[in-house]
Amino acid sequence: MLFFRNDYGQGCIEDILNILKDINYENITGYGQDEYCQKAISLIKQQIPDLDVDVHFIVGGTLTNQTIIKHVLKPYEGVIACDTGHIATHETGSIEATGHKVIMLPNNNGKLTSDVIRKCFNDHMLTYEHMVYPKMVYISNATEFGTVYTREELMDLRHICDELGLYLMMDGARLAQALMSPICDYTINDLAKWCDVFYIGGTKNGALMGEAVVITNPEIKPFFRFNLKQNGAMMAKGWLLGVQFIGLFENDNYFKNAKHADELSSHIQDELVRMKYPLYMKSDTNQVFPVVSKKQYEYLSERVDFEIWDQREDMLVIRFATSWCTKKEDVDQLIQYLEQASEL
Amino acid sequence: MLFFRNDYGQGCIEDILNILKDINYENITGYGQDEYCQKAISLIKQQIPDLDVDVHFIVGGTLTNQTIIKHVLKPYEGVIACDTGHIATHETGSIEATGHKVIMLPNNNGKLTSDVIRKCFNDHMLTYEHMVYPKMVYISNATEFGTVYTREELMDLRHICDELGLYLMMDGARLAQALMSPICDYTINDLAKWCDVFYIGGTKNGALMGEAVVITNPEIKPFFRFNLKQNGAMMAKGWLLGVQFIGLFENDNYFKNAKHADELSSHIQDELVRMKYPLYMKSDTNQVFPVVSKKQYEYLSERVDFEIWDQREDMLVIRFATSWCTKKEDVDQLIQYLEQASEL
Amino acid sequence: MLFFRNDYGQGCIEDILNILKDINYENITGYGQDEYCQKAISLIKQQIPDLDVDVHFIVGGTLTNQTIIKHVLKPYEGVIACDTGHIATHETGSIEATGHKVIMLPNNNGKLTSDVIRKCFNDHMLTYEHMVYPKMVYISNATEFGTVYTREELMDLRHICDELGLYLMMDGARLAQALMSPICDYTINDLAKWCDVFYIGGTKNGALMGEAVVITNPEIKPFFRFNLKQNGAMMAKGWLLGVQFIGLFENDNYFKNAKHADELSSHIQDELVRMKYPLYMKSDTNQVFPVVSKKQYEYLSERVDFEIWDQREDMLVIRFATSWCTKKEDVDQLIQYLEQASEL
Amino acid sequence: MLFFRNDYGQGCIEDILNILKDINYENITGYGQDEYCQKAISLIKQQIPDLDVDVHFIVGGTLTNQTIIKHVLKPYEGVIACDTGHIATHETGSIEATGHKVIMLPNNNGKLTSDVIRKCFNDHMLTYEHMVYPKMVYISNATEFGTVYTREELMDLRHICDELGLYLMMDGARLAQALMSPICDYTINDLAKWCDVFYIGGTKNGALMGEAVVITNPEIKPFFRFNLKQNGAMMAKGWLLGVQFIGLFENDNYFKNAKHADELSSHIQDELVRMKYPLYMKSDTNQVFPVVSKKQYEYLSERVDFEIWDQREDMLVIRFATSWCTKKEDVDQLIQYLEQASEL
Repeated sequence: MLFFRNDYGQGCIEDILNILKDINYENITGYGQDEYCQKAISLIKQQIPDLDVDVHFIVGGTLTNQTIIKHVLKPYEGVIACDTGHIATHETGSIEATGHKVIMLPNNNGKLTSDVIRKCFNDHMLTYEHMVYPKMVYISNATEFGTVYTREELMDLRHICDELGLYLMMDGARLAQALMSPICDYTINDLAKWCDVFYIGGTKNGALMGEAVVITNPEIKPFFRFNLKQNGAMMAKGWLLGVQFIGLFENDNYFKNAKHADELSSHIQDELVRMKYPLYMKSDTNQVFPVVSKKQYEYLSERVDFEIWDQREDMLVIRFATSWCTKKEDVDQLIQYLEQASEL
Repeated sequence: MLFFRNDYGQGCIEDILNILKDINYENITGYGQDEYCQKAISLIKQQIPDLDVDVHFIVGGTLTNQTIIKHVLKPYEGVIACDTGHIATHETGSIEATGHKVIMLPNNNGKLTSDVIRKCFNDHMLTYEHMVYPKMVYISNATEFGTVYTREELMDLRHICDELGLYLMMDGARLAQALMSPICDYTINDLAKWCDVFYIGGTKNGALMGEAVVITNPEIKPFFRFNLKQNGAMMAKGWLLGVQFIGLFENDNYFKNAKHADELSSHIQDELVRMKYPLYMKSDTNQVFPVVSKKQYEYLSERVDFEIWDQREDMLVIRFATSWCTKKEDVDQLIQYLEQASEL
Repeated sequence: MLFFRNDYGQGCIEDILNILKDINYENITGYGQDEYCQKAISLIKQQIPDLDVDVHFIVGGTLTNQTIIKHVLKPYEGVIACDTGHIATHETGSIEATGHKVIMLPNNNGKLTSDVIRKCFNDHMLTYEHMVYPKMVYISNATEFGTVYTREELMDLRHICDELGLYLMMDGARLAQALMSPICDYTINDLAKWCDVFYIGGTKNGALMGEAVVITNPEIKPFFRFNLKQNGAMMAKGWLLGVQFIGLFENDNYFKNAKHADELSSHIQDELVRMKYPLYMKSDTNQVFPVVSKKQYEYLSERVDFEIWDQREDMLVIRFATSWCTKKEDVDQLIQYLEQASEL
Repeated sequence: MLFFRNDYGQGCIEDILNILKDINYENITGYGQDEYCQKAISLIKQQIPDLDVDVHFIVGGTLTNQTIIKHVLKPYEGVIACDTGHIATHETGSIEATGHKVIMLPNNNGKLTSDVIRKCFNDHMLTYEHMVYPKMVYISNATEFGTVYTREELMDLRHICDELGLYLMMDGARLAQALMSPICDYTINDLAKWCDVFYIGGTKNGALMGEAVVITNPEIKPFFRFNLKQNGAMMAKGWLLGVQFIGLFENDNYFKNAKHADELSSHIQDELVRMKYPLYMKSDTNQVFPVVSKKQYEYLSERVDFEIWDQREDMLVIRFATSWCTKKEDVDQLIQYLEQASEL
């Protein structure tokens, strides 16, 4: 069975396993205040030469989104997300559980635009205290549809946030995949200038676990560790998370992993187009979304492990995801299967 | 200046003022455990001969919605409301502040239907624990658009709730106005059978303040007073709320007030149609929503106090509300002004 | 049966009833943005000539404490209260319900002192982010034991708060009774300088309901009305609360009511001492706490309505409360009963 | 520098590292629904032959306490803990952050007793809805002081919980160390009968991370995974946690690790007594608490890494912790240093 189900289905890159083994018997300070976390923070700061940022590590994405948003917003403030945003859909109301409304706006290819944000803000200002105050914009990059924000789009979001006094937060669970996309024309350093806070995902790019939160806005830096602890997001053996990011950034694995995944996906998508499979959405990164018939689905699902994204009358939207771990020969085999299915 | 801004712009019916004056120096038990609250509860129970219900009084609508929903739902459960529902729009995220997601579905004339509820529920079940569990359906009757649920529609909602294991809650801030509507073919006693919990609004029907929560589902009766107290919803002089509902129910003022308001509104709406004003929505109760031009708006706004409901390019949706307190002669004057404006 | 159970057992002073009657049919703006609230705010501001304060009205004490504390604190911050403080005991965890820990410290005659605050703060700083950050000091004045903070004590609290960067909040449910106490040597204007936020209680001093929140610290003024609305603390007919405070402040009733209550209580306490009843705590205001035997309790409880404060083996601590509404002849009768009971 | 600072200062046992390496490239289902978690659950269930339990894995202790308590309690319910309990002290108000009061009662050698629970419950019932409803008892075993509950004490707690209708929850961050203590006369299977829910700590007993929640009360089993997800406690690579507990339970490492730690600590404690160091508390497990002078502290702190537990005028309470990883020769060296310090 070929595995194209997701990008977090295997362990981690060798470098991380090796560090874990090498330092296993060292005596290390707890709660993320150790030298490995310090080293990982330094490596990330090297990516952001132009700014003085704070970096914190959290074990997973939902806990990261929850901790950041709870930290930034006041009780009566809400966060704007598009209707496909992860916090608006598949985190079981974890933001609402902290007391904050997620204000859902229509997506454009999985992205938010300044137009819908402005309209939403103005609508809220009309009745003022009878609605929550929209104070933060949450975007994912790459998006849940595999699309990538362009430099122009991000600067546009930054401008509307500046104009309206909003915080801009970027969920970077698949940030590496966005950065390595052919359409991407910016760096982590650029992102740090545009976002008030963002994170660099490890879990979906070759680490066992871990997201690295980067806070650039000085207003929201203080006391973040109090929120980490209160939210159960401070690990006793916090150095485990530092190790993940040393493994990712020391030898540029963070970028290499994502490039590998993106290239394989791009190849699959090109082949899908060639074979005339409709695409649900043109992806820029490591997820592709073909539309298949029921018969094709049945043929493929016996040979390949993948996700169903959506079901329509007699068609299905399915997702193939590639990762740091996907092998070229598996991609070739997948394409063969698709070729055969295309004739069904 | 004529007043058609809302239905809570004056004090209260004489009967309530008189009771307040009569018992002002009596020594009364605190926190709603007095004989006046008991009497008010009895009067309400007389409206519901077929069921053994619990009744509690809360000072206002937002606090009532918040207290009920917080009491009923578990942390990971959400409440379904239509996108025009009061909890989804104009309560400043008060439900989310208790930790619960409001799942917004498209309205049909201000109402929820079993179709959209079923689709929403099924969608949530697909990813199961990755989304909140939709466990309660919140409806307003009369709706925020002045429309009224029919017996058939309510029984349909009850059936889908039974089928899917959901609680049905009715926001009755304007329940009297719904019950007195010509299209209404059910009673409070019927509603008690269809809803797990609902409330009988006082504030918008002639009381100084107060909503009477009626709990019919035995599962959610216990410990409600703990939540009342924790939410700041238990008044020291709780008898004040009992007095409101004695005043409303002792001489059928509750029904008379609403009938008066509904009839005046109905007359205004008929006249609007006659004068060929477009209606934004055909109302069944004490709010009417004509569409007017900018010029008409300017003419009217100098003579009448009313609300703007929505603004479109060169038209405005405005709202006239009548109440227990609206005078026939003011309605006649309003119609005269409308007649004049219709020629602009 | 004589009534000495509490100070919120009757309606309100005539002035308030009269205003309610006089303005009953006026058309008044909703949600506290009316001219009566404005007038009440002006009257309160006249008491605080030295500062520019914000004033808001909330229907009851628990809702007031909850709304203020939620507004001021960040998620990881806690509020210090003494173990007899109302928020620490009899508000059903309403502060915790907003996500904040109430840090309980031992009381000294119902009061907090700078010593215990300093020790608590230092202890918390030792483990830092592993404990909540103590950021606010909550005191009641008069206290739950009827005692009153002196000028010196309050300035001492202000100093420790300044030194440690803490907010000082005063629960003034019985502030009038404190101000009228013979031992009080300060004014509302002074309190406004010492507290970041406090409130002026109406419910226990002759109003039907209502507490007036006074915010003096400019940092915590913005967006308070958003929290009011979110917490269900914004009444549709908000002018009802304005009316209470016009009634209390227009003719100095606020002060006269409390003076009346304090003097009657003081007289009862003097007589208790003369009759050699032990006192649980020497009160400075309108509550007195004699210790009685079981026999005395039985005799009194057949003739007087009062509260049991504490039960010990064969003694009981009971509480007599006086109010704006207590009659001199009832006090005389109470003293007679006490005289007779003293011989049991 | 000798390391006796804590029991979570190194990586993990070899068995866990080996499994991680062995399965690194396998394709594994996400979110804890994989075969490794299933195998770990089976191994834990083998320890509890008499009951049908549910088992879930969570990455750390604070998140575990928070998730369990939030799952079990209703909004107005509180959890009883002793004043030294971890949730009452060093979790930054994480329980209050979920809306629940932690009711702190005085500890007896770090333990709760039925007497204080009964008194607390009765006190709360007196004012009923004016205080939170105490519904759960939280204990740690081993306690934060290294003491261990006896069979008799636990049965006593079970009885009071049955009598009063309370849930009993055991924080087992150091459960293995308790079970291996010479004074322990019960098994995990026994604990499962006495507790409604408890957890088996991995982090402090040789795993990289992870606590295994065991739910025995059928009432609180349903929908736990919804709360896991909402609280950010569901890891994408959830199998990582399964692997920890396979490593701990497959070859009885869970018991061997703790036995090793307990024996070394016991030896240190015996030697401390022999050398006439006062003990702050007699420990039964892997933490010992000698009292030392400032001079002794200075001498030791240059040679040994340990924690300061409490500071008094000229004495300090310090803590030595042993673990699965502590070497016998390090213990011998520590005793030598203590011998020398004892003469200062």
